[in-house]
Amino acid sequence: MNVDLKFSSKYFINNNNFTILCHVNPDGDTLGSAYALCGALQHLGKRARVLCDDKPSERFDFLKETLSDKPDLNKIPDGERETVVTVDVADVDLLGGLRERFPVIDICIDHHVSNKNYAVHTLLDTRAAACAELVWELLMEIEAEMPLEPPLATPQIAAAIYTGISTDTGCFKYPNTTTMSHIFAAEAMGYGFDAAKINYVMFDMKTRERVILENHARTSMEYFFDGKCAVISLTAEMLDGVDPEDAGNISALPKQIEGVLAGVVIKEKGDGEFKVSIRTSDGVDAQAICSKFGGGGHLRAGGCTIRAEGADLETIKKAVLKEIEKDMI
Amino acid sequence: MNVDLKFSSKYFINNNNFTILCHVNPDGDTLGSAYALCGALQHLGKRARVLCDDKPSERFDFLKETLSDKPDLNKIPDGERETVVTVDVADVDLLGGLRERFPVIDICIDHHVSNKNYAVHTLLDTRAAACAELVWELLMEIEAEMPLEPPLATPQIAAAIYTGISTDTGCFKYPNTTTMSHIFAAEAMGYGFDAAKINYVMFDMKTRERVILENHARTSMEYFFDGKCAVISLTAEMLDGVDPEDAGNISALPKQIEGVLAGVVIKEKGDGEFKVSIRTSDGVDAQAICSKFGGGGHLRAGGCTIRAEGADLETIKKAVLKEIEKDMI
Repeated sequence: MNVDLKFSSKYFINNNNFTILCHVNPDGDTLGSAYALCGALQHLGKRARVLCDDKPSERFDFLKETLSDKPDLNKIPDGERETVVTVDVADVDLLGGLRERFPVIDICIDHHVSNKNYAVHTLLDTRAAACAELVWELLMEIEAEMPLEPPLATPQIAAAIYTGISTDTGCFKYPNTTTMSHIFAAEAMGYGFDAAKINYVMFDMKTRERVILENHARTSMEYFFDGKCAVISLTAEMLDGVDPEDAGNISALPKQIEGVLAGVVIKEKGDGEFKVSIRTSDGVDAQAICSKFGGGGHLRAGGCTIRAEGADLETIKKAVLKEIEKDMI
Repeated sequence: MNVDLKFSSKYFINNNNFTILCHVNPDGDTLGSAYALCGALQHLGKRARVLCDDKPSERFDFLKETLSDKPDLNKIPDGERETVVTVDVADVDLLGGLRERFPVIDICIDHHVSNKNYAVHTLLDTRAAACAELVWELLMEIEAEMPLEPPLATPQIAAAIYTGISTDTGCFKYPNTTTMSHIFAAEAMGYGFDAAKINYVMFDMKTRERVILENHARTSMEYFFDGKCAVISLTAEMLDGVDPEDAGNISALPKQIEGVLAGVVIKEKGDGEFKVSIRTSDGVDAQAICSKFGGGGHLRAGGCTIRAEGADLETIKKAVLKEIEKDMI
């Protein structure tokens, strides 16, 4: 059942023992939303905790500062009824191992068009650039319902909300950024926290391993079709021991080159398996190209896994280029 | 004389024939401010033009879309009194060759703490992250003074303002970003333009030359003092034929590495000249280090030019590292 902010605020006020679930491969939005909500609920004197099936990157550790220092509020007593919440989770498949542990989701807060409507109550706003925007609106609604002194949001909670908005909009750079993204960011910043530091940690801080991988990536870059297509090929050796988060961010590099309409990254996984990611603009359909290899995605970003026993990067590259060429003409 | 928004709005309403001057090495803020103001003044039926002593990068060409298509409004008739305006210009030295051509500046709009108060009237707000924020406030004040139909700001003018704010805040990433930066960005976005496209052109679009230079830069990167210092050394050969704008952006790279407190870029200019730029954090004073070599800057970012006949990059690097080491202990 779809619910609105008013219903949701009452729902959170009238329940207790909240377990808030994040999606696997947790990002700044699912974690920022979860820790902001968790800290706010504890501020209301409720018991709440955050769970995620994957261990988040250490760069998100500061988000835990939203939590109450009262141990009692950070755990759910055995045998008591839990209220299970998901944030930024479009589909229960994205809960990983937590899916079986929590077969019933009481309330889902999300902003994905692809939301599967799996929860008893769903607070969905597909216009929101980040789930954290919706959590922020919810907190303001709860505050309006039952004014608190000091106010419900703390600088730490505001920082968590900001982290969600900033990471899901690429620091306000992506097309999903709306006027409301900026307004919520401004409201959150009014609570006082170091936004520049958060952005440094989220966007600019790079591990040495990441820098070395970028070197490999840039050195391997080749151009095709009058510079309209750029391809990065990474061997299994180059990827050995590299954090998947670091490796994932490489996908954006080739599309950044001036004039490139299709940016491709091919990663050799070993045992004849290759992962391909494609980013496109104007007139090139990433999803269509990836679907030729059994993958999917959106118009502007797609991916696929190609299994070809004995094939090398060169062979895979040629096969992908052939499909791209068709779309470019 | 320092003036406020109310005075300034009346001043622009009561004058005509505006020549708006930008600073040399023009960036998104001086150009965005100038073209937004110029377009708005033309919308009021006034004659106005933008001048800059350096040719702006082509990536700023879209800003000219603010201008009226009436040729008459785009030039100042011979012999008529001109009103000379500067935007984002802290000091007349930054006008380059235009300084002698326009010895009297009627009104200066700026946000630099270092503003030299050189104009007859100065509208200064040092809390503003960008001069464009101040121009936006000015346009809103003019609009309040004399409501127009259609409104004073067009999508093109709003886009120019957004460009100034976005570029001067590093897309809302730098510590100078305030709640007002976000609010003005939200207001401007309400006029309807493609903010994501502007940000792509300003931040993510890279020329092939830039990518090659980045490769050289990253490949040459060396670490010192337990990884707390990273140094990029670029030979004259690597820099040959590279756009200075591309080369300038390299300065930020070494400080982006996790754990690096001092990031150094040394560029060999030829004929025994070397340019050094230093970016620092926590406890390392870039200005102090650069001043040892006759340079200057701020606590977090400094630069100097070292002239040493017959010296090579290695020698210069050692000299700079020696000074950094003192500050690191």
